[in-house]
Amino acid sequence: MEFTAKQIAEYVQGRVEGNENATINTFAKIEDGKEGAISFLSNPKYIHYIYETKSSIVLINEDVELEKPVQTTLIRVKNAYECVARLLQLYESMKPKKTGVDPLAFVAPSAKIGKNVYIGPFTFIGENVQIGDDTRIYPNVTIYDGCQIGQRVTIHAGTVIGADGFGFAPNAAGYEKIPQIGIVIIEDDVEIGANTCIDRSTMGQTVIHKGVKLDNLIQVAHNCEIGENTVMSAQVGLAGSTKIGAWCMVGGQAGFSGHIKIADKTFIGAQSGVISNTKGNGEQLIGAPAIDPKIFFKAQAVMKKLPDMYREIGMLRKEIEELKKSK
Amino acid sequence: MEFTAKQIAEYVQGRVEGNENATINTFAKIEDGKEGAISFLSNPKYIHYIYETKSSIVLINEDVELEKPVQTTLIRVKNAYECVARLLQLYESMKPKKTGVDPLAFVAPSAKIGKNVYIGPFTFIGENVQIGDDTRIYPNVTIYDGCQIGQRVTIHAGTVIGADGFGFAPNAAGYEKIPQIGIVIIEDDVEIGANTCIDRSTMGQTVIHKGVKLDNLIQVAHNCEIGENTVMSAQVGLAGSTKIGAWCMVGGQAGFSGHIKIADKTFIGAQSGVISNTKGNGEQLIGAPAIDPKIFFKAQAVMKKLPDMYREIGMLRKEIEELKKSK
Amino acid sequence: MEFTAKQIAEYVQGRVEGNENATINTFAKIEDGKEGAISFLSNPKYIHYIYETKSSIVLINEDVELEKPVQTTLIRVKNAYECVARLLQLYESMKPKKTGVDPLAFVAPSAKIGKNVYIGPFTFIGENVQIGDDTRIYPNVTIYDGCQIGQRVTIHAGTVIGADGFGFAPNAAGYEKIPQIGIVIIEDDVEIGANTCIDRSTMGQTVIHKGVKLDNLIQVAHNCEIGENTVMSAQVGLAGSTKIGAWCMVGGQAGFSGHIKIADKTFIGAQSGVISNTKGNGEQLIGAPAIDPKIFFKAQAVMKKLPDMYREIGMLRKEIEELKKSK
Repeated sequence: MEFTAKQIAEYVQGRVEGNENATINTFAKIEDGKEGAISFLSNPKYIHYIYETKSSIVLINEDVELEKPVQTTLIRVKNAYECVARLLQLYESMKPKKTGVDPLAFVAPSAKIGKNVYIGPFTFIGENVQIGDDTRIYPNVTIYDGCQIGQRVTIHAGTVIGADGFGFAPNAAGYEKIPQIGIVIIEDDVEIGANTCIDRSTMGQTVIHKGVKLDNLIQVAHNCEIGENTVMSAQVGLAGSTKIGAWCMVGGQAGFSGHIKIADKTFIGAQSGVISNTKGNGEQLIGAPAIDPKIFFKAQAVMKKLPDMYREIGMLRKEIEELKKSK
Repeated sequence: MEFTAKQIAEYVQGRVEGNENATINTFAKIEDGKEGAISFLSNPKYIHYIYETKSSIVLINEDVELEKPVQTTLIRVKNAYECVARLLQLYESMKPKKTGVDPLAFVAPSAKIGKNVYIGPFTFIGENVQIGDDTRIYPNVTIYDGCQIGQRVTIHAGTVIGADGFGFAPNAAGYEKIPQIGIVIIEDDVEIGANTCIDRSTMGQTVIHKGVKLDNLIQVAHNCEIGENTVMSAQVGLAGSTKIGAWCMVGGQAGFSGHIKIADKTFIGAQSGVISNTKGNGEQLIGAPAIDPKIFFKAQAVMKKLPDMYREIGMLRKEIEELKKSK
Repeated sequence: MEFTAKQIAEYVQGRVEGNENATINTFAKIEDGKEGAISFLSNPKYIHYIYETKSSIVLINEDVELEKPVQTTLIRVKNAYECVARLLQLYESMKPKKTGVDPLAFVAPSAKIGKNVYIGPFTFIGENVQIGDDTRIYPNVTIYDGCQIGQRVTIHAGTVIGADGFGFAPNAAGYEKIPQIGIVIIEDDVEIGANTCIDRSTMGQTVIHKGVKLDNLIQVAHNCEIGENTVMSAQVGLAGSTKIGAWCMVGGQAGFSGHIKIADKTFIGAQSGVISNTKGNGEQLIGAPAIDPKIFFKAQAVMKKLPDMYREIGMLRKEIEELKKSK
């Protein structure tokens, strides 16, 4: 299927600069541009590509000023990233989509599966699991007994929902297991990446609220709760019973102590270690233990000078002693 | 099934404060309490819930002093956490448990499987693998050829035991693979979380000793050894040939360099980086590189003042120069 | 099968010191030596074992000077580690190897599978996937639609290739998914560990170049590129669109920000956080944010003295004020 610059501009409510009849039939990154492809420019870091791209059409923000003429046809829009997202969604919606429970999946007889669900090969759905309508579960996923998955949820391959929380009580001989009799609840519109683990609670439930997006290889321990529309990058880890607010953003490899509470709209930098409650909505934190990013980056800059500072303090001490003596 | 406060108190050797005939038929977290549920209070952080919980019975430590009367029935015990563990174990033992090799699992003909073993769907058991009695292996686990799993071991979904250790020798053209001909030995009473990886050794064996508890997404490299009853939280990583002592506790996301030795009963904080041998039994370490927690937290507290310190040192220098001149 | 010291010395072009007719039929680590085994000594840390090992033969570097006589037979070689690698390869090549697509694997009808390929049970190969000759894919791997795997590639159990990149655009109600229509390309001679995730790109491709070796539990985000013969230890994470050069070495648990470029032959220490482009070939970096290791370790050493420094600065200030007053 081919589309012209004019057709696309109408769809995304943009304005064509160049050849209205330029046609495309695929997408390409701006740096890998080729004839017949549409690209987009959103990150200003990549602006130099606009002059060399071979793509036939490029979506670009209204307010970007170019220093010289370009060969490609531009479509000016308010938000190029949003527009390309809409075009990709259109493109995706045209592709046929697998649905149904694959015959190579295992679904316990007592599980309740909604309408228009996809469950891939080698995915295990345990006893009394509930899965809402329009949910997609890729291959090799394991969902333990009793967990509840909402509507329009996506779970990528290899992810494990509802394994036992990590609970052991020490005794003289070793550790006794504390049975984990709770469940995991994944609410509507959640997307979970590949090989992520969300443990069932000791009692009650581990809850991933509506609209949360979790990347790959994330650890969510027992009794945790992640608030609506919070987004976590890969390899983040939450210790037990920690509650993350709504609309938070968490960078990759960050870790959270157990039994803490993070306020809504908190922004946690990558590799941070958060060890206590946070208060403020909209707060930013980075480092381990996590602090204000302004303080963190200033302190980090001075870090390199620590050995010099140490030496200088020694010299100042010496000179002061001499001044004292010579009085 | 229903139990009265009196019956429970007898079972856990506790003392009822309140209505001996209060009945329960389920468990609930104290903050999610409801009629007919038993809860427990162990973490002093949550003490305020005791006054508002709707649970019919709460297990609580003998020595906790309450400031005002409570509506729920209390059962006073030496260790509430241990008692709830025993009750959960009782509850769990009443549930029917799946056993046997699921027809959707793959077990190599040469593998030796003990008695009363559960092996879930889509789990792969390679050639010459040995699995001891009463061991449970959840779905989508992979156990490579030749690995040995003890008795009463639990392995959660998605975990991989015995993949090749990461060994390559550089040459001019790239890297040559060093075949990994060793195995993994998992001793009795070990529990391993979901999506954890324990690599086979180059030669000899990677060993997880008796009673070890490993959480999810942990990496144990080739030729490592983890001592009896050591506990590791999620996302910990061990580089090759490292030996961890017995009864250690390792916090989440901590990492260990290769070829080091950690003494028994060492306590390693979350996100630590341990790069050298440790000596003392009972030592505590945190940070990267890991140091004494007292020093670490003091240094971290001062970290924020680093830019101020840097400025102050510059000012002291200036003032000393002036004092010298004015002499 | 048995081999004599003489035969082995010929194969690895070494020189026998001791009994030419000593025979071995297996391998053992030098510390676990036993009669009939060959061991090697490469790491100088383990040199004391040479005097006590029970192995019949030990491969050792030409230039290692011993302080006292040994009981074992030595084979002196240029590079003991390389020689043991060659012997292990010989040993491995004698073992029968499984090939073919296991009947318990799922391979989409439109996938193209090369010659002499092994695909293990419960591995999922999606539509239009291409897999080159002599490639081995262990059990429980998932390869999403359209991804391309080269020749002589090894992919260990539980790894996920081509799950959706983590792309969402915020709107007032939550996040909209940005469809990920690109693919993953794994070039020839790549080895990928267990439970690692390599995401498909938004458009275009995520590329793992020829000869790359990735350990377990690694996260490679959408649109990343890893240069030829780069080696990464377990639990490393790359955020989106980052490009790593050729022949780099990356320590375990290190993380990379998105949209950065790492030069060839860069050496990144374990647990580092790399947040900006690197320039120099052969550069070494460690820490978070990553800096020159010499500066890092010096600064870390001083770190412990920070509280003392802070106190000392306060005292210097006081003494200077007194000196000023007393002038």
